[in-house]
Amino acid sequence: VTDLFWPGDDRAGSLMSGEALAAALVEVERAWLAVLVDAGIAPSDAGDEVADLVDPAGDLETLAVSAESGGNPVIPLVRLLRERLAERRPEAARWLHRGLTSQDVMDTALMLCVRSSVEQVLTDVRRQVTVLRTIADRHRSTLEPGRTLTQYAVPTTFGLTAATWLDGVVDAAEDLGRVRAELPVQVGGAAGTLAAVTELAGLAGSAGDPATTAVGLARALADRLDLCPAPSWHTSRRAVTRVGDALVACTDAWGHVANDVLVRARPEIAELSEAPVEGRGGSSTMPQKQNPVLSVLVRRAALNAPLLGAQLHTAAAAVVDQRPDGAWHAEWAPLRTLVRSSVVAASQTAELLEGLEVHADRMRSHVEGALTDLLAEQRAVRSLGESAPAEHVEGAAGYLGASRTLVTAALDRADRYLKETS
Amino acid sequence: VTDLFWPGDDRAGSLMSGEALAAALVEVERAWLAVLVDAGIAPSDAGDEVADLVDPAGDLETLAVSAESGGNPVIPLVRLLRERLAERRPEAARWLHRGLTSQDVMDTALMLCVRSSVEQVLTDVRRQVTVLRTIADRHRSTLEPGRTLTQYAVPTTFGLTAATWLDGVVDAAEDLGRVRAELPVQVGGAAGTLAAVTELAGLAGSAGDPATTAVGLARALADRLDLCPAPSWHTSRRAVTRVGDALVACTDAWGHVANDVLVRARPEIAELSEAPVEGRGGSSTMPQKQNPVLSVLVRRAALNAPLLGAQLHTAAAAVVDQRPDGAWHAEWAPLRTLVRSSVVAASQTAELLEGLEVHADRMRSHVEGALTDLLAEQRAVRSLGESAPAEHVEGAAGYLGASRTLVTAALDRADRYLKETS
Amino acid sequence: VTDLFWPGDDRAGSLMSGEALAAALVEVERAWLAVLVDAGIAPSDAGDEVADLVDPAGDLETLAVSAESGGNPVIPLVRLLRERLAERRPEAARWLHRGLTSQDVMDTALMLCVRSSVEQVLTDVRRQVTVLRTIADRHRSTLEPGRTLTQYAVPTTFGLTAATWLDGVVDAAEDLGRVRAELPVQVGGAAGTLAAVTELAGLAGSAGDPATTAVGLARALADRLDLCPAPSWHTSRRAVTRVGDALVACTDAWGHVANDVLVRARPEIAELSEAPVEGRGGSSTMPQKQNPVLSVLVRRAALNAPLLGAQLHTAAAAVVDQRPDGAWHAEWAPLRTLVRSSVVAASQTAELLEGLEVHADRMRSHVEGALTDLLAEQRAVRSLGESAPAEHVEGAAGYLGASRTLVTAALDRADRYLKETS
Amino acid sequence: VTDLFWPGDDRAGSLMSGEALAAALVEVERAWLAVLVDAGIAPSDAGDEVADLVDPAGDLETLAVSAESGGNPVIPLVRLLRERLAERRPEAARWLHRGLTSQDVMDTALMLCVRSSVEQVLTDVRRQVTVLRTIADRHRSTLEPGRTLTQYAVPTTFGLTAATWLDGVVDAAEDLGRVRAELPVQVGGAAGTLAAVTELAGLAGSAGDPATTAVGLARALADRLDLCPAPSWHTSRRAVTRVGDALVACTDAWGHVANDVLVRARPEIAELSEAPVEGRGGSSTMPQKQNPVLSVLVRRAALNAPLLGAQLHTAAAAVVDQRPDGAWHAEWAPLRTLVRSSVVAASQTAELLEGLEVHADRMRSHVEGALTDLLAEQRAVRSLGESAPAEHVEGAAGYLGASRTLVTAALDRADRYLKETS
Repeated sequence: VTDLFWPGDDRAGSLMSGEALAAALVEVERAWLAVLVDAGIAPSDAGDEVADLVDPAGDLETLAVSAESGGNPVIPLVRLLRERLAERRPEAARWLHRGLTSQDVMDTALMLCVRSSVEQVLTDVRRQVTVLRTIADRHRSTLEPGRTLTQYAVPTTFGLTAATWLDGVVDAAEDLGRVRAELPVQVGGAAGTLAAVTELAGLAGSAGDPATTAVGLARALADRLDLCPAPSWHTSRRAVTRVGDALVACTDAWGHVANDVLVRARPEIAELSEAPVEGRGGSSTMPQKQNPVLSVLVRRAALNAPLLGAQLHTAAAAVVDQRPDGAWHAEWAPLRTLVRSSVVAASQTAELLEGLEVHADRMRSHVEGALTDLLAEQRAVRSLGESAPAEHVEGAAGYLGASRTLVTAALDRADRYLKETS
Repeated sequence: VTDLFWPGDDRAGSLMSGEALAAALVEVERAWLAVLVDAGIAPSDAGDEVADLVDPAGDLETLAVSAESGGNPVIPLVRLLRERLAERRPEAARWLHRGLTSQDVMDTALMLCVRSSVEQVLTDVRRQVTVLRTIADRHRSTLEPGRTLTQYAVPTTFGLTAATWLDGVVDAAEDLGRVRAELPVQVGGAAGTLAAVTELAGLAGSAGDPATTAVGLARALADRLDLCPAPSWHTSRRAVTRVGDALVACTDAWGHVANDVLVRARPEIAELSEAPVEGRGGSSTMPQKQNPVLSVLVRRAALNAPLLGAQLHTAAAAVVDQRPDGAWHAEWAPLRTLVRSSVVAASQTAELLEGLEVHADRMRSHVEGALTDLLAEQRAVRSLGESAPAEHVEGAAGYLGASRTLVTAALDRADRYLKETS
Repeated sequence: VTDLFWPGDDRAGSLMSGEALAAALVEVERAWLAVLVDAGIAPSDAGDEVADLVDPAGDLETLAVSAESGGNPVIPLVRLLRERLAERRPEAARWLHRGLTSQDVMDTALMLCVRSSVEQVLTDVRRQVTVLRTIADRHRSTLEPGRTLTQYAVPTTFGLTAATWLDGVVDAAEDLGRVRAELPVQVGGAAGTLAAVTELAGLAGSAGDPATTAVGLARALADRLDLCPAPSWHTSRRAVTRVGDALVACTDAWGHVANDVLVRARPEIAELSEAPVEGRGGSSTMPQKQNPVLSVLVRRAALNAPLLGAQLHTAAAAVVDQRPDGAWHAEWAPLRTLVRSSVVAASQTAELLEGLEVHADRMRSHVEGALTDLLAEQRAVRSLGESAPAEHVEGAAGYLGASRTLVTAALDRADRYLKETS
Repeated sequence: VTDLFWPGDDRAGSLMSGEALAAALVEVERAWLAVLVDAGIAPSDAGDEVADLVDPAGDLETLAVSAESGGNPVIPLVRLLRERLAERRPEAARWLHRGLTSQDVMDTALMLCVRSSVEQVLTDVRRQVTVLRTIADRHRSTLEPGRTLTQYAVPTTFGLTAATWLDGVVDAAEDLGRVRAELPVQVGGAAGTLAAVTELAGLAGSAGDPATTAVGLARALADRLDLCPAPSWHTSRRAVTRVGDALVACTDAWGHVANDVLVRARPEIAELSEAPVEGRGGSSTMPQKQNPVLSVLVRRAALNAPLLGAQLHTAAAAVVDQRPDGAWHAEWAPLRTLVRSSVVAASQTAELLEGLEVHADRMRSHVEGALTDLLAEQRAVRSLGESAPAEHVEGAAGYLGASRTLVTAALDRADRYLKETS
């Protein structure tokens, strides 16, 4: 079920949903059991069967309600998995989850959910980069008034505006890509010592030092799940805050785009408009309305995201002991909300940009109507010259500075980004 | 469906859920149609039928998905209601929603949802006040070390600690009660002028000034829904931030309780513990564990709530025009999350306090083990006297200051609160 | 020294500055000594001399640097006061600060600083209410396009826009006034038990129960400082968060005004502008610039304030024990910053409104240019009537709904506010 | 003057102070004039004289007060510099600041201030890493109870606890180091087009394309100031939010350390204590007090930092146009506050760790007193073996898992960090 309080939420589908989390939790337990089997610790591979034991949708309500007792959903999930697996493979059931603590499973599962969602964001970022590249290129010569502190400044081009949006998006995307590449697995056991895993390794009589084996098993789980091996981060939450920071930086960049579109879609300015879509932008009472609704919803996400990211830092700053007493539990909901709203905003921004209508005539008209003001700086600069230069006649186009060069640089950067991430 | 990312969420039931919002939106439309009928503007009462037209659960997905196009769920809801009502009462269908704008319906419906939720919070606050009253009274003479900046300070009593919790809860509850009593209706029409309502009043040929009639109809809606009449607050969002501020103040007060329980439930201190409940507080791997899980979850809520409240203020500070371009839309999700998590934390705190186990022997033992330190201030004060007083022999009990008087004052205040709110 | 990072900071003068805090700390110690003397506990009145002992400006650096050792500035201040007083009145010096803890002095001093600052804010709010009253009244008939989600909606009047600003300001001011009236004194002693005060009362052989005397002394301090008596709130920080919430609500309301001015001061809209002031609004490079700089700076404050308020709640939610281990210390800086920036923004908003230039011709021109759209709702409403009404010819002025009535209501409310607060 | 509201503030000296900002603003103007001279645009080098023209301390008040008119301090600074330079070198005075806009100077100067401050933080981080390395190494075998959700879990070592702190510090430091290395110069001119610079290049008749020359001059400023060249980021504020995010991650990591020390410095636990320092940790009323005041102040910073970082993101998400109408101005104060409080907390954390007293006997005593509980998981794991293993007799030391290996890994990482950053 999508979220009536967050129009557009369905764009995120089941990413980072309760269902997705339940599936990811099962996936982690399954992979870990396979690791134990591979290491000769657990007697046989029951991994595939584990995947079938829980219906992420059907069992969700039970898991959610039972989660309160232990403070997290892993405890009832393990109980459920063990009960059901015991009916088919009693010997395997006993080994399920052994060596892990609930935080290992929850943290790792969240990283899996984050990964799918971030990949979706990055896919939509590529759409954004691609279309912004085209817009910036196409409008290199489209004159518009530069505006600072809301007032006319000097002339610029819409191509450079788009190039600036593009730089902002690539700034954010590069950070997010790095975060995506470094998502860690969590394997620490009850207090981060890998004690139970080490014990299991010792019991199995594995060759070599059981502690070394235990560290190797943690690494093996990372390999199976395609996450990065890492020292246990039960109480060092930079992995989580990095995700948050990078996503907030994305919504900042999209918010910038939305703010610009909203200002310039105002009827008195009318330089930009969203693509008309049948049934979109209407009002419940005013038949004439064509609201820039995608921009409105992107702006909404940008207003909220910084405080969701801050919730993750507030939690990270409140950790204590080997595993904390609330700070960990406080992360899940804001992380979910931030991730889903970022997925939605990424998609909406891409669609917004792909359909953006640019009214170059209006831009030019604003430039022409304010030419004296827009060239005031140029006159001041020229008056510095020892001899006054011959009167230039090129108008606003003669005071665009390095805008073409800057657009080219942004396009080159976008090309590199697209190439490196393809 | 409850929230896997927020264990305990099911305590909030359907309060402030998508389903509840959908039902409240329908309720507002129904009540408004009844107002129009009463005023002789709409031809007949179709109110009761309106209530049946939408299945809050069944139609929820459709409404949520359709909400993006107009930016809010009211637009598809009105379309749905009109279509369905048209089959039974075509003449009534045309009058549905007339005079309102989508923000009128959404804001008013949110206030209805807030009301139900706040009432639930206040019910649990009464439980808290009642049990804290008993604890404070019972433990007036239970000695414990006062702790400041984590170190022993002077003696106090657990009764005074409970009285301090009680004062904090009543502080918050009084504000929340005031907010509950002042929740406003929203009726402004498209741009806050009541233009369509006034037009309708004029068309109906109602006696008197149509504008006065329009204002009266807004008031009539407030009466029907038992909300307060108010000038349109489309862009003055204090009604929303007041709800947020008051709820955050509640979670602050509950967080204070949870923090204290968590510190004093530590095994080395062991002065307090949560009631043992079958199956609660366990671990996925450590059989001996009895985690203070209610306190952990309350603390979690207290960590997150301030930033949810701040999201509402950030939105309130970003309004513009007659109805804003994202700032309004940004309110719904954080308001929902804050309200639901407050309902959950209110219930958890009440249960925590009702089951709280007080280990007076441990408290006394800590006092006795540190008596010299705990009475250091007393010795310093006594040395101020012109002649040194005879050596007092009463121990810590002789340096409790006004603690009994202060407990009595807190109990009296609690009694007044309980009486005034019964 | 004013703050280079916050242009306009000098408007706050020394309110809530380090100097003001130092002076307030001394004032609290002085008043408390006077209370002890009045009660016959301290041997003679040294109060007036205490006030002279510290030079808030000259000793500030020393106090600030010394504050780290104990974690707060009261400890070095008491040492300094005692040393200096001992030279003049050795017998009085010994009694200074007796019965209090550093948090009593700091909290109470902060309330004194808050009071002066809030009074300054309320003075500027009266200026705002007064001028908004005039603007709303003058522009009852000034047509302008209502804008929702940035697009034209229905006609409204600038008078109603100003009335909406006015309602927002009065909403916030009423809360702030209530907070002002309820600022509490803090007297709890080391752990909130009033133990040292009670001991002193006992030593002095005061008639009656020493605990009752102690509570009476706390009340006497409140009377001397014109603050409200209250149970010790060392760990129940609603007094502080109420100040924060109320000030943030003010900046929200002023941000709303600033956002509207900024949009409507754009050259393409040009409906509003700030008063031209010699040397204001210029640029470092563009000679033509007239930036709406007051609005920019008010908007700046509104962007930041919500998170300053949230810092206070985050601290309030983190308290523990009888006095907390960091949560208390975390309050001072954000409270100072929020209070000072509110004082500055209050003044800037008042000046902005007093000088606001209203270009009614531009507003009318926008209405006339979009009349068909602005009356689309009216046509839809009229089409509901059984027989189409005769074509109305009054234009936008014929679709202003209850706007005049609503303006009148806002003016009446403003009049009541001004009367009640005069 | 240091900050009475933030004890310990003097540790930051003049870093990121008003004085430092004024000096950095002058430095940017000086360097830019030198760039213009080098390029043959400005007639002669007046750079060194520029540096002398303003007294950062003496002129600060004037600059701060004058900053409101234009909304930022650059405008009055340029006026002041020009007036004073005109007396000595009239021809140079005319060229000062030419080509730049105030935001170029402010943003670049802030990056210079950030750099000095971040370098100070990184210096203190090296102290932290060095001492944590030693602590972790020394206490590899120091048994302590692992604690999760406040309750005993399984045994661990204090060496591993320190290694976890260390990992957290290095996580944060690596990000901060990257941010340090990438601090950008800001050169965009009035609207990001480099129009005035290009014009100047054209006027000077420089060889080649004036736009290319202009981009080269921006790069030359970066070289002179040892900042990174970058496309103009007037409206893409990732450079600023990256600084914030990285500093908040640092305070998160330090907060984790402080929280642990605070819990374990409680008298009932007494496993850790701060080094006793003459005059530190005292109380204004209780002579016995030894408060862990460094930890208290570090925790304070960690409570506040997340919301300062969020202010930067909120501002970044609110940009619009070529240069924004308040969002830019909103950055300065929170950036200053976050940077200074990070410098202070870095120093305090280093000092805290360097003096940390570890009471290994208390840790061991807690382990021994709870051995049955601490080994409950081990017994559960062993019962999985087909044949029960011979009873182990090694006690807690026999269930430390891979803790030694994990400590070694953390030390290796620390060594690499120290080597790479030396």
